[in-house]
Amino acid sequence: MAFDSVQTPAGKADKVLGGSVNYFSVAASFYAPVQVLGVVGEDFPKAHLEWLSARRIDTTGVKIVAGKTFHWVGSYDGNLNEAKTLSTALNVFEHFDPRLDDKHKDADIVFLANIDPVLQTSVLDQVRKPKLVACDSMNFWITGKPDELKKTLKRVDILSINETEAFLLSGEKNLNLAVAKIREMGPSVIIVKRGEYGAMLFTPKSIFLAPAYPVDKVIDPTGAGDSFAGAFVGFLAEQGASREMATQDPAGWDRLLRRAVLAGCTMASFTVQDFSLHRLMRLEAKELVDRQNALMQMISIG
Amino acid sequence: MAFDSVQTPAGKADKVLGGSVNYFSVAASFYAPVQVLGVVGEDFPKAHLEWLSARRIDTTGVKIVAGKTFHWVGSYDGNLNEAKTLSTALNVFEHFDPRLDDKHKDADIVFLANIDPVLQTSVLDQVRKPKLVACDSMNFWITGKPDELKKTLKRVDILSINETEAFLLSGEKNLNLAVAKIREMGPSVIIVKRGEYGAMLFTPKSIFLAPAYPVDKVIDPTGAGDSFAGAFVGFLAEQGASREMATQDPAGWDRLLRRAVLAGCTMASFTVQDFSLHRLMRLEAKELVDRQNALMQMISIG
Repeated sequence: MAFDSVQTPAGKADKVLGGSVNYFSVAASFYAPVQVLGVVGEDFPKAHLEWLSARRIDTTGVKIVAGKTFHWVGSYDGNLNEAKTLSTALNVFEHFDPRLDDKHKDADIVFLANIDPVLQTSVLDQVRKPKLVACDSMNFWITGKPDELKKTLKRVDILSINETEAFLLSGEKNLNLAVAKIREMGPSVIIVKRGEYGAMLFTPKSIFLAPAYPVDKVIDPTGAGDSFAGAFVGFLAEQGASREMATQDPAGWDRLLRRAVLAGCTMASFTVQDFSLHRLMRLEAKELVDRQNALMQMISIG
Repeated sequence: MAFDSVQTPAGKADKVLGGSVNYFSVAASFYAPVQVLGVVGEDFPKAHLEWLSARRIDTTGVKIVAGKTFHWVGSYDGNLNEAKTLSTALNVFEHFDPRLDDKHKDADIVFLANIDPVLQTSVLDQVRKPKLVACDSMNFWITGKPDELKKTLKRVDILSINETEAFLLSGEKNLNLAVAKIREMGPSVIIVKRGEYGAMLFTPKSIFLAPAYPVDKVIDPTGAGDSFAGAFVGFLAEQGASREMATQDPAGWDRLLRRAVLAGCTMASFTVQDFSLHRLMRLEAKELVDRQNALMQMISIG
């Protein structure tokens, strides 16, 4: 959970709501109930936690501690696919140590947002019998804590990552080879995010090429990847997905993952149409369904 | 028709066969017979013209004149989507003035490669009753001869162009608006090429998002756009397409265009796998069909 101050070619927003977990859980909540783990400072607006709670997002796992909330300051120049970090104030996040309650420990589906892989592993140690584990990471951890990240990845079913990070993590320069190497590390399903160009889904059986929904204007790309992951994992949860499906019904698993990726692409396309969570907060179920159908039409060969 | 000297991250090739018309016609010839108009110098290898003739490409419209063949020298650095031109020696191309024979004048389908729009219009003036006109252009003509280009575009059904050029031509910064503006200039169908990310097809009825086929390694992107256009137009020719279809059967026209775009993406993916026309020259029909089917699988939601 974070405050973001962000500047894009379309304008700027100062100290607005941000953070992977916010984007993820709001996106996922369109499909399934969510339990959030996180930490905020005393400066974090209670109204926001209440708003989350009002839409089947359980925030009892969000600790409010003395101090300030994590604050990220960044900008996007010409290339909207890459953020430039201007400053990062970890604040209360510096000593974040996720402790799971009994109800969290029984989670079927776990999403490990992009944090220190040591903490990711600690969360997995606490969950009793997850049926599916998805995970995000980034160049900072890939280069900073490669061994710890690889330890986490051994227990991950689905990894979402961007193209550059896939090369960095695998040491390969070719995407097919990179994915094969990453699969050996643990995750059988790899999603390669490509910003405004969509995402690629690599399963053991096939490759799926999902385009981004072409929006009229990108206001702020922040949170696109996290809300992609939220809709993707939320969709899988709604459909009762588990890693068993991969062996019991590989073709059905592939179809389910493809639809989940399109759910992710659709959600991300709303996120980027405004700063912060603004667009997601006023998003209606019908708009979501309509756009997802439109996106499916745009890739159908009829 | 040209010689290219090109350097890419994968290596370099010196004075190899290049030129839009070579890439286009070889690609198109997999689908339909082609008549080529062009000019070469006395240094152009006869063997190549003979090779083209051997695969239903009529080269009687290629003039061989005293002097040297057009020679382009370029390189690609990190970004394989954008060539850097190091030098251009127009040579015999400088005085190119396409004169059509009787058989050319009866062409049903015309593709105007990326040359001076004054020459493009001159070609159209000579063709008696084209059923479909497709056209390529580039920033050089968009900024250098905007009025002449607009005169050509009035008579064009299908324009292929890249994203940056679409913005430049329309004066808009948003792709949907850019396409709407370009449509007012003449072409009802606009294909926006996105390099390694594929292409977008805009018809009056719909948008189709076609991904590039993910090849293991891009050796040289030169000619990708031209071979895309060749397979696209060749496929339409094979299917007996004409602009009438757009009004008589809009849904069928959309379906046909979508399949033609996938044919284009597939062909381009072979082109980039080697320097010059090398990959296309050894490409077999079965490989083409297999890859096109694979690409269709990669966008199917099952």
